[in-house]
Amino acid sequence: MIYPGLKGIACTETRISDIDGEKGTLIYRGYDIEYLTENYTFEEVAYLLWFGDFPNEAELTWLKEELKTKRVLPDHIKQLIKLLPADMEMMSVMRTAVSALGTPEFGWKPTVDQAILLTAIVPSIIGYRLQQTKGILFNEEIAQSMDYMNYYLYALSGNVPSATHVKALETYMILTLEHGLNASTFSGRVTLSTESDMVSAITSAIGTMKGPLHGGAPSGVIDLLEEVVASGHAEEVIRAKVENGEKIMGFGHRVYKTMDPRAVALKKKLMHMAGKDEWLDLAMDVEKAGIKVLQELKPGRSLYTNVEFYAAAIMKAVNMDPSLFTPTFTASRVVGWTAHLLEQCENNVIYRPSAVYIK
Amino acid sequence: MIYPGLKGIACTETRISDIDGEKGTLIYRGYDIEYLTENYTFEEVAYLLWFGDFPNEAELTWLKEELKTKRVLPDHIKQLIKLLPADMEMMSVMRTAVSALGTPEFGWKPTVDQAILLTAIVPSIIGYRLQQTKGILFNEEIAQSMDYMNYYLYALSGNVPSATHVKALETYMILTLEHGLNASTFSGRVTLSTESDMVSAITSAIGTMKGPLHGGAPSGVIDLLEEVVASGHAEEVIRAKVENGEKIMGFGHRVYKTMDPRAVALKKKLMHMAGKDEWLDLAMDVEKAGIKVLQELKPGRSLYTNVEFYAAAIMKAVNMDPSLFTPTFTASRVVGWTAHLLEQCENNVIYRPSAVYIK
Repeated sequence: MIYPGLKGIACTETRISDIDGEKGTLIYRGYDIEYLTENYTFEEVAYLLWFGDFPNEAELTWLKEELKTKRVLPDHIKQLIKLLPADMEMMSVMRTAVSALGTPEFGWKPTVDQAILLTAIVPSIIGYRLQQTKGILFNEEIAQSMDYMNYYLYALSGNVPSATHVKALETYMILTLEHGLNASTFSGRVTLSTESDMVSAITSAIGTMKGPLHGGAPSGVIDLLEEVVASGHAEEVIRAKVENGEKIMGFGHRVYKTMDPRAVALKKKLMHMAGKDEWLDLAMDVEKAGIKVLQELKPGRSLYTNVEFYAAAIMKAVNMDPSLFTPTFTASRVVGWTAHLLEQCENNVIYRPSAVYIK
Repeated sequence: MIYPGLKGIACTETRISDIDGEKGTLIYRGYDIEYLTENYTFEEVAYLLWFGDFPNEAELTWLKEELKTKRVLPDHIKQLIKLLPADMEMMSVMRTAVSALGTPEFGWKPTVDQAILLTAIVPSIIGYRLQQTKGILFNEEIAQSMDYMNYYLYALSGNVPSATHVKALETYMILTLEHGLNASTFSGRVTLSTESDMVSAITSAIGTMKGPLHGGAPSGVIDLLEEVVASGHAEEVIRAKVENGEKIMGFGHRVYKTMDPRAVALKKKLMHMAGKDEWLDLAMDVEKAGIKVLQELKPGRSLYTNVEFYAAAIMKAVNMDPSLFTPTFTASRVVGWTAHLLEQCENNVIYRPSAVYIK
């Protein structure tokens, strides 16, 4: 018996998250993600994923300070980022810069301190690369006064972001922090399982996330939203696509069969912001039009949007370049990856499946 | 049902190699490895693993030229290697330098050209790092006249190697080119499965091989051989260890239950070289003593040496520093990794096992 892609094969227990594709739920450490996005910040949910519980006030202050201190790039990483070829994709830059952090102090076992460092430094790697290639500059002093989410948007754009944009992107990032044994998380666990180190494992995970089949980044939906803006008629654009046999990006999901709980949580949060950003408002209209057209023309088809749908609207709202979608997804997922690595090392078994030899 | 480490779970078909742990056989593309080490060179077996058949004369000449041309380090990789912290382990240097090769030309799908480049460049990465950190220098012109195996030893030592040493190390490298879905090969396949690229996948594999549980590198046996040299009495040294309840390194194997075919092939090859190197001769004596003592004191115990046993003798013979054992194992295994990646991309399915959620 061969299990291609290991679909349906459980290879570990986990306390980190639970995905129920039929019910359409996603749980982090016992908490429904909608509850988390409604009530907690990026730092609080990251703490929950790493430690298994919410931080008290002192713990939260500590984590915020750690994230600030640890995001400062060592000199050799700055020099290395400058050396890399101009046409190198951001994901390859991130993979290489993270790998270059790997000195012996990152040896077995992985620690929460290392998890915090890797989470903190990824935005700085992206930001510094953009400084070099796009001339995006920012004030170090202002940057160091900022918490994670404000810093993230500031480092990528050079502009102090609005509270609406920070909140919208924060919601997206909380929802994408973690999603079970997807290919990137799994590759990190496999790498760590030889008693390698967290730097090696995160390097593997970044290289795995780089592939277009990984999914999760909202590039596909952007074109749809832009077409609607250009024509001014959401329903017509979508109707033409469906009649033409095209897939409507942002609807349906491989794992979630009834609804994508991340899209539900994202929409709920964005509805609090109604009228504050034209892209967020547009997305609501396009969703309605999409459901109407699909209901009419494809009655059997999934009638719900996925996380990428509203994520695309957020990316447009914060004016993020498409080349930074997967890097942004990476920045949030580092939290889930490192939580899994901390779990893996507590009860480690080396991964070694078998293959069937064909002459 | 949970399968820790995915032991016993087949996740793909493969035409590359077959391991039979009970019979003690290892087959590359239909050929027993003893037949391969007795009759073919590193380049020929690498060609076999990539293409599925042996090269004719023109194809072999082509491959040798390709390996020479492609081993030249790009300038930015040289500068990057100089930048990396002095205390960084060689495996982390290799992981970072390989990652830094990843420009868009390495995009999906992987090619044999990329496989050759990665195989060719790994010895140069190791050699250049040693130039920087240990002051090992070599003449570029002499280096460029050399085939893979001579170049490998020259780049690592700065000395033109003897034919005996080249042949001994070549045998070890042929035997370790490939070994099924071990953790490093598997991590490479998982990374590639998102339609990522060969650079990302080899970067993952290097990071996975870095861990001490991966095995295959002969560090453990060296101490035993050195103790025997210091005392002059192989049997006494081993007897004391067994009576003290210590494991005798280099005997037995997790997968091979009756004999390790790689050790058998290695020994056979080394016997042709009897009297040519004191370490190789010593290993034969220590093996005899080990079997005698184990037979007497542990009658149920495995009475055969594994690949690491004779590999250790070869490493001593060529005077290789222990910090270069795993990098050398990596240099040979790049061939197997890349062969697996070429196979993976022909019939790709994304890897996504599941986990059982525990509250």
